[in-house]
Amino acid sequence: MKIALVVGSAVATIKDDKLHGRKLLLVRKTDDSGNPSGSTRVAVDTVGAGKGDVVITVEGSAARRTFDTLDAPVDLAIVGIVDSLEVEGTVTFRKGP
Amino acid sequence: MKIALVVGSAVATIKDDKLHGRKLLLVRKTDDSGNPSGSTRVAVDTVGAGKGDVVITVEGSAARRTFDTLDAPVDLAIVGIVDSLEVEGTVTFRKGP
Amino acid sequence: MKIALVVGSAVATIKDDKLHGRKLLLVRKTDDSGNPSGSTRVAVDTVGAGKGDVVITVEGSAARRTFDTLDAPVDLAIVGIVDSLEVEGTVTFRKGP
Amino acid sequence: MKIALVVGSAVATIKDDKLHGRKLLLVRKTDDSGNPSGSTRVAVDTVGAGKGDVVITVEGSAARRTFDTLDAPVDLAIVGIVDSLEVEGTVTFRKGP
Amino acid sequence: MKIALVVGSAVATIKDDKLHGRKLLLVRKTDDSGNPSGSTRVAVDTVGAGKGDVVITVEGSAARRTFDTLDAPVDLAIVGIVDSLEVEGTVTFRKGP
Repeated sequence: MKIALVVGSAVATIKDDKLHGRKLLLVRKTDDSGNPSGSTRVAVDTVGAGKGDVVITVEGSAARRTFDTLDAPVDLAIVGIVDSLEVEGTVTFRKGP
Repeated sequence: MKIALVVGSAVATIKDDKLHGRKLLLVRKTDDSGNPSGSTRVAVDTVGAGKGDVVITVEGSAARRTFDTLDAPVDLAIVGIVDSLEVEGTVTFRKGP
Repeated sequence: MKIALVVGSAVATIKDDKLHGRKLLLVRKTDDSGNPSGSTRVAVDTVGAGKGDVVITVEGSAARRTFDTLDAPVDLAIVGIVDSLEVEGTVTFRKGP
Repeated sequence: MKIALVVGSAVATIKDDKLHGRKLLLVRKTDDSGNPSGSTRVAVDTVGAGKGDVVITVEGSAARRTFDTLDAPVDLAIVGIVDSLEVEGTVTFRKGP
Repeated sequence: MKIALVVGSAVATIKDDKLHGRKLLLVRKTDDSGNPSGSTRVAVDTVGAGKGDVVITVEGSAARRTFDTLDAPVDLAIVGIVDSLEVEGTVTFRKGP
């Protein structure tokens, strides 16, 4: 799984039936401190994530293994909200209050 | 999922049976403003997208989870037409009239 | 799917049973004019493609969704022969006679 | 599969039900001497790996083919702890005591 | 599929049950002459390959479509030993005696 920052959202009226009612968030992969890098992707939120959250995303067929995305044409899903990351004994990211 | 711009189309008379009748569009990945970058890929359209549309594409096995692509040898499908994208509170892309 | 040029072939006497009788072609990804770039891959041909053909390839599990590759250890298959490509209203590739 | 070094861990209280009770480790891909390079990813541990271990990771749907990850939204799993690596007749990595 | 050179082997005593008894080889992707480039990966051998062999590897779910890897947490398998490669009418690689 990859660590990503939720940076925005996408609106698409015309879309596959199985995507209706799904929240489409824009995410960017981050380093282990939650700093974004790389390009913007569209992820289906399955855990109530919002803008500014550092999240755990899954790609590929794994993105369809959540209650909300089962069998939908989805290849990127948010499956966790990161509280903290620790690297080599140092806390590199902690979710704000 | 990735944001992409529809830039053209491909014609292939000889192709897998399950691809017959499918619209093959050429797409290029875009940034969050709809500006294309990267190489041209072939995607099966499942939502009536056309040239110039900024769309949402899914890759891998997810591309076979639409009504039109079920069980077909397809690894890239267009599953939504983007109306607008918003990043950090700013609208970065809005579909023209 | 990706556009690719068939540049050669591979011979492997010792191989998985399910690959026996399959034509293994060497392909290179191309741009939208059929000019190759990137590294050489091995693809299973399923449509009678030959050297010099610009083809449509599928990767991943999609490569096993053809009559010839069902359930075989294959992650790249040729599923179409390109007749023409059109980008922004211009024909960028047309198959020779 | 890829060789990776376990560099830390992630805590996420809010996450998909099927991830509860799973140890989420931070890993970085290494070269054949166990030296890390590339970005930090989140992997589910299935073999009791700990920080400092050089491990074998699997990606994609394979990450769900372990007892601990079956059908969970997981795309990266640790499936082995490396004792030693040998390249061209030379031991390039050996696990410390 | 990709062409790769077998450069070594990995030993892992602690590993997923379904990997026990499997030969774990280190491979590096090659160009069409069998010259390695890119990083070292761990592949499960399914055809009796050995060090120095130029082989055909499959990634992703395809790596589980062999007799030896069925349903195992494996994302890279060796499924053929290359005898020769031919590009643009020239033999670019031929297996030694």
